[in-house]
Amino acid sequence: MRIVIALGGNALGNTLTEQMTAVKYTASAIADLIEQGHEVIVSHGNGPQVGMIHHAVNELTHVVEQDFPVIPLSVCVAMSQSYIGYDLQNALREELLNRSIHKPCATVITQVVVDPDDPAFKNPSKPIGRFMSEEEAKKLAEEKGYQIIEDSGRGWRRVVASPKPKAIVEIETVKALLQAGQVVIAGGGGGIPVTAHGNHLKGTSAVIDKDFCSCLMAELVDADLLIILTAVEKCAINFGKPNQKWLDNITADEAKEYCKQGHFAAGSMLPKVEAAIKFAESSKGRKSLITLLEKAKDGIEGKTGTIVYNP
Amino acid sequence: MRIVIALGGNALGNTLTEQMTAVKYTASAIADLIEQGHEVIVSHGNGPQVGMIHHAVNELTHVVEQDFPVIPLSVCVAMSQSYIGYDLQNALREELLNRSIHKPCATVITQVVVDPDDPAFKNPSKPIGRFMSEEEAKKLAEEKGYQIIEDSGRGWRRVVASPKPKAIVEIETVKALLQAGQVVIAGGGGGIPVTAHGNHLKGTSAVIDKDFCSCLMAELVDADLLIILTAVEKCAINFGKPNQKWLDNITADEAKEYCKQGHFAAGSMLPKVEAAIKFAESSKGRKSLITLLEKAKDGIEGKTGTIVYNP
Repeated sequence: MRIVIALGGNALGNTLTEQMTAVKYTASAIADLIEQGHEVIVSHGNGPQVGMIHHAVNELTHVVEQDFPVIPLSVCVAMSQSYIGYDLQNALREELLNRSIHKPCATVITQVVVDPDDPAFKNPSKPIGRFMSEEEAKKLAEEKGYQIIEDSGRGWRRVVASPKPKAIVEIETVKALLQAGQVVIAGGGGGIPVTAHGNHLKGTSAVIDKDFCSCLMAELVDADLLIILTAVEKCAINFGKPNQKWLDNITADEAKEYCKQGHFAAGSMLPKVEAAIKFAESSKGRKSLITLLEKAKDGIEGKTGTIVYNP
Repeated sequence: MRIVIALGGNALGNTLTEQMTAVKYTASAIADLIEQGHEVIVSHGNGPQVGMIHHAVNELTHVVEQDFPVIPLSVCVAMSQSYIGYDLQNALREELLNRSIHKPCATVITQVVVDPDDPAFKNPSKPIGRFMSEEEAKKLAEEKGYQIIEDSGRGWRRVVASPKPKAIVEIETVKALLQAGQVVIAGGGGGIPVTAHGNHLKGTSAVIDKDFCSCLMAELVDADLLIILTAVEKCAINFGKPNQKWLDNITADEAKEYCKQGHFAAGSMLPKVEAAIKFAESSKGRKSLITLLEKAKDGIEGKTGTIVYNP
C-alpha cells in the first residue's frame, strides 16, 4: 500500500533533546511499515517547534536587539521543516540501515497554497508554541495583540489562522521521490502557507492543519491509506462520559454524523476525523486510520484503531 | 550540460528583505542556463544566514531566557537550508513560469559527512555570522571563547571549523530529482556537517565550505561543469598590485602553482580555486568556471570568467 502518515508535532517533543528521543521511537514504528513493503510518505505537525522558533527569533531576540529583522511565521514554518526533517530523516535512515533496508529518506521543503479569502483568517483557531499560564497568556495577548485559547486542559496557548490547504506546490517532487522508491518527509507543519498571485507565491501568517495537508497529500499521491496518529488508540463518542464508546470501523457518513453531534474537540480530534472523512470520500477504496503511533502496524492489520471508510 | 552552481551566502543578503531581492536576481541568472537546456543543481553558502540564526537562538534568546534550549550549529545549518531554500525555490519557480518553463524546483535537506579527525577541527577558519567591529569581536572572543578573524577588509567575524566533505548523505535524492528533470537546491551552506558512527550520523559544530561541498556534489552527479560564483568576474594573480593579471583559461596545474605562490586569499578566493582544481582533475572533460553571477551565461560560452581545465 501507499501510505501517508501524519505525525503530531506534540509527539515530537518540546525540545531538541526530546525530539531526538521521539524520532527514534517514531522511526521504529514507521520502519515497521516500510519493512512490510509499504510505500511511506511522512508528514508531521510543528506546533511546539514553530512556536519555539517564532518565539526565539521574534520575541526573545527583539528584547535584546530591537532592530533584529522580523522573521514572518511562514519563514518560521520553513525553518521548522528542516529543524524536524533533519532529525526525522536521520533517525529513519539509521533505523532502516539497522534492518539492512537501503532506502534513501529525504525531507522536501513544502509550500502549500491557501485561499487569501479563507474565513479562517478572520477567526484564528490553531494553537502554536509553548503552553503558558493564564496570566502570562493574557499579558501577551494584551501586549502583542495575540489571540489566545485554553488548549485541551493542558494550558494556554497562542492561536493563529488555520486556512484549508488548496494545493501542494512541490507535489511533483514528492511523486518523483516516491517513484524512485524513497521515503519522503513532506508537508511538515502542514506546509509553508502561501497565497498565489499569478506566478508569485507570497508567504502568509498562518499554520495549516497538518491533518488536512496530509489528507490533500494522500489524495494527490493517490495513496491507499491515510494514517492520522494521535494520543489515543481509537476515537470515541461521548469521550470521558459514562456512556463513552470507542469506535472501530465507521463509515464516512457515520463519522460525519458524530462530528455534527459535537463528539470531537475542535482543534484536537475534530480536524483529524474531518481529514479522515475527506480522504475516505475522495475516491473508491481509500480509507483512513486514526490511532497511536505504536498501534499503526496493528491498525493496518485491522486489529485496532478507528478506521473511516466509504462503503 | 549538467551544471552545479555554487552561490555565495553573502550574495544572498544579510536580511530576509535583502534575500528576497537577491534571489530574484539569482533566479533570473540561473533561469538563463535552464532556458539554454542545461540541467542545474544549485548549492549555496550560508555564512550570514547561519550566523543570524545561531546568534538569535543561541545568544540573544539566552539573555532573556537562560533556560532556552541550546540549538547546535548543525541544526542551525539545517534551518538555514530551508530559510534560504524556501525563497530560492520560490524565486526560481516564478522566474521559470514567467518564461513558460514548467520545471519543479525543490530544496533537499542535505547532510554531509566529515571526518571527526579532520585537522580543521583544531584550526577553525570559516567565518560565520555578521561583521563586527574589532572591539565587539574581541569582547565576544573573551566572553564566549569564540575564535575571531579580520575578514577580507570587511570587518571582524567569528570563525568555526571547516572540515572537508567526505560524502553527501542525500545524494540519491539529488540524483532522483535530476533524473525526473527537476531543478535541485542541495548542499545548502556546505551541507549539515555530520560524523558517521556505524549507521548513526551525529551533527557536529562546523561549517563545511560550500565550494568543496559543491565540488563533491558535482563529482557525484557526474556534472560537466562546476560554476563557482564570486564577487569578481575573473580570478587574478598579484591581485590589487601594479602587476595584477586577470586569468582566463588556466590548467589545473597552473592553478595549483598560483595557489602555492600565495596569490589567493585563504577563506576567500583560495578555497574556490582549490575546489575548481579538484573538480577539473576528478575526471576527463570536466571543467570549472569562476565568475560573477551575471556573467555565468557568458562564462559558459567562453566569453569571460576564469576556466580551470585539465588538458
